[in-house]
Amino acid sequence: MFGPLITLTTDFGVDSPYVAAMKGVILSINPAARPIDLTHAIPPQDVRQGALALAATTVWFPPGSLHIGVVDPGVGTARELLFAEIDGRGYLAPDNGLLSGLTRRHRPSEIRLLRERQFWLSEISSTFHGRDILSPVAARLSLGLATKELGPSVADSVELAWPEPCVAPGEIRGEIQHVDSFGNLVSNIERDLLPAGIPVESLRVECGPLRVAGLTTSYGHAAPGAAIALVGSSGLVELAIVDGNAARRYSLDVGAAVRITW
Amino acid sequence: MFGPLITLTTDFGVDSPYVAAMKGVILSINPAARPIDLTHAIPPQDVRQGALALAATTVWFPPGSLHIGVVDPGVGTARELLFAEIDGRGYLAPDNGLLSGLTRRHRPSEIRLLRERQFWLSEISSTFHGRDILSPVAARLSLGLATKELGPSVADSVELAWPEPCVAPGEIRGEIQHVDSFGNLVSNIERDLLPAGIPVESLRVECGPLRVAGLTTSYGHAAPGAAIALVGSSGLVELAIVDGNAARRYSLDVGAAVRITW
Amino acid sequence: MFGPLITLTTDFGVDSPYVAAMKGVILSINPAARPIDLTHAIPPQDVRQGALALAATTVWFPPGSLHIGVVDPGVGTARELLFAEIDGRGYLAPDNGLLSGLTRRHRPSEIRLLRERQFWLSEISSTFHGRDILSPVAARLSLGLATKELGPSVADSVELAWPEPCVAPGEIRGEIQHVDSFGNLVSNIERDLLPAGIPVESLRVECGPLRVAGLTTSYGHAAPGAAIALVGSSGLVELAIVDGNAARRYSLDVGAAVRITW
Repeated sequence: MFGPLITLTTDFGVDSPYVAAMKGVILSINPAARPIDLTHAIPPQDVRQGALALAATTVWFPPGSLHIGVVDPGVGTARELLFAEIDGRGYLAPDNGLLSGLTRRHRPSEIRLLRERQFWLSEISSTFHGRDILSPVAARLSLGLATKELGPSVADSVELAWPEPCVAPGEIRGEIQHVDSFGNLVSNIERDLLPAGIPVESLRVECGPLRVAGLTTSYGHAAPGAAIALVGSSGLVELAIVDGNAARRYSLDVGAAVRITW
Repeated sequence: MFGPLITLTTDFGVDSPYVAAMKGVILSINPAARPIDLTHAIPPQDVRQGALALAATTVWFPPGSLHIGVVDPGVGTARELLFAEIDGRGYLAPDNGLLSGLTRRHRPSEIRLLRERQFWLSEISSTFHGRDILSPVAARLSLGLATKELGPSVADSVELAWPEPCVAPGEIRGEIQHVDSFGNLVSNIERDLLPAGIPVESLRVECGPLRVAGLTTSYGHAAPGAAIALVGSSGLVELAIVDGNAARRYSLDVGAAVRITW
Repeated sequence: MFGPLITLTTDFGVDSPYVAAMKGVILSINPAARPIDLTHAIPPQDVRQGALALAATTVWFPPGSLHIGVVDPGVGTARELLFAEIDGRGYLAPDNGLLSGLTRRHRPSEIRLLRERQFWLSEISSTFHGRDILSPVAARLSLGLATKELGPSVADSVELAWPEPCVAPGEIRGEIQHVDSFGNLVSNIERDLLPAGIPVESLRVECGPLRVAGLTTSYGHAAPGAAIALVGSSGLVELAIVDGNAARRYSLDVGAAVRITW
């Protein structure tokens, strides 16, 4: 059973009324549904950043919650829409890799193509399937519709290539995969990759002109303006400027190389 | 009967705590009310853009839902505030044309001036009637207050002049009425105005330097960077750059002339 | 008894999914909780602006509502986290002055340090205590947890120094303490400080190059583009440009001196 929580992740921008149209559709079908904004600030058409946001944030929602993702440059073409159950939660998204930040960690227990039109709006636009298909399907799932009614089961969904960090003796090489709203540079290097038996204070972290000696544990442990590295709240190594914006100050962005040495 | 859904449309900006003050007032009166953001990114004092957002988006909410609009440059002057029932939904707004995107399509079944102060907050500021009058009135309507209690019935509300597209043999002339968060240029030309019997692929669409041959059905049917025209999700002809921002690239904005020829 | 309303005030930015992680934690513990955004646009690490937003906006919420504040440059250091009951509402925040906009008006009836780890998430990051400590504690309070369980009672919380306006014969000197999303300049001079017996129309208000003769009652009483002064919706004297942005036009910001003379 899924619902009544239904999160929404889109690239519509925080100022867009399109999100409210999706909530209106959901609440017209299930007045007890509880739509919640996850983020609408995914850069337009940036499926990878959408996949990261869904993977990092939906894990904080309870089992049975539903999560709609709409970063959908292929809307109206032959790309499929799908439902997936991943780690006990339900996801609705175009089959373009938007769920692959989740599926690379957890094999979905079920994937279905959305093919049964009786669960969609009666009129389908060619440009806004988030409103016309994903929202009504989520609302119906939250009312108890069985997932097997949605369409045929499939084994796999589209996977993005995820650059994996490379671990070698004395070093780990990775890259920045996300810049948060503070300008902190979040890498793809997870805490578990850090060398056992080496104190984190003796690790060196480099990213472009940023060179930091030692991981600290929090932003408040260095002076304002100091460059620091730490394991952030998602368990990933990140670089930051205390009370400042590291991305802006050093013109660093997603894709910049990160190297940890010891 | 109206409620418990109450949407909020304002020009306060997405970063403003003023919206939360309205929600606090609503929930103080009816703890079961469900305030929902429609948009708060209406350009300051731009009644017309507010009217368009309300008309395009509230139609996705169920009958009986309530919708508050606050784009109110005349707050504290002699302008009236009103309640209107339009197409089964309830609206609360200043009488400055903010509802005229709706009323030009559907004649309101009821319009009332908000005059009965016992339904307002006990202290009324001169600058924030959205919080002090519209929110408490919406909350009381959502508790079952009869609309006839609100104040006297009137026949009409303020109408903005809406530039209507001009249809002539072999052409339609209209204008851009909205730029969405993707930079897509949405015209005031509805699908129903397109010539019957002419394939949309042979229509030509022009807007300033943008010249497009043929309407497509979705963004994904042309190469990234290509200029396209299509009927968007609100049923209006729009121009877009695939995976790009048409408004920014061509410095086009609301009011730009659009011409469709065949 | 507190809850189920739980507002969230942070400096995460309106585009951040971190807010949704807090909502997910809250709803995982109490599915009936009702998280509500107050604002997420506090400038990064600006505790004072966070304190002002909390003080100005939470008063519109009903008694028993809960309010989480996360502007927390000291996260992960020795700073305490606390619960406070102020004027019938419950607050959860770092002990860094974030509640001092409230506490300088109302003495808290209870302040407790958050020390009892059984009410937190089982794993605590060093950088996101809003998600890992404040959110689960708020959720448990909304389920009926007694505040005395949270940790030891203390007498005081950190107070910011609040510049107080200075009243002298024939003048009041204060400063701009907030710029709202319209660019209106909100001072720290409350309505009650204005001289009794002098008509507000004869007060002169100065702020940098802005000189206004007489307080008006609302934005709509002068021509577009005119500089005006008035008592705004929070009861504070503010300067504004009718249909314009006073802060931007005159490059005025928080801290600018304001003088009222008569």
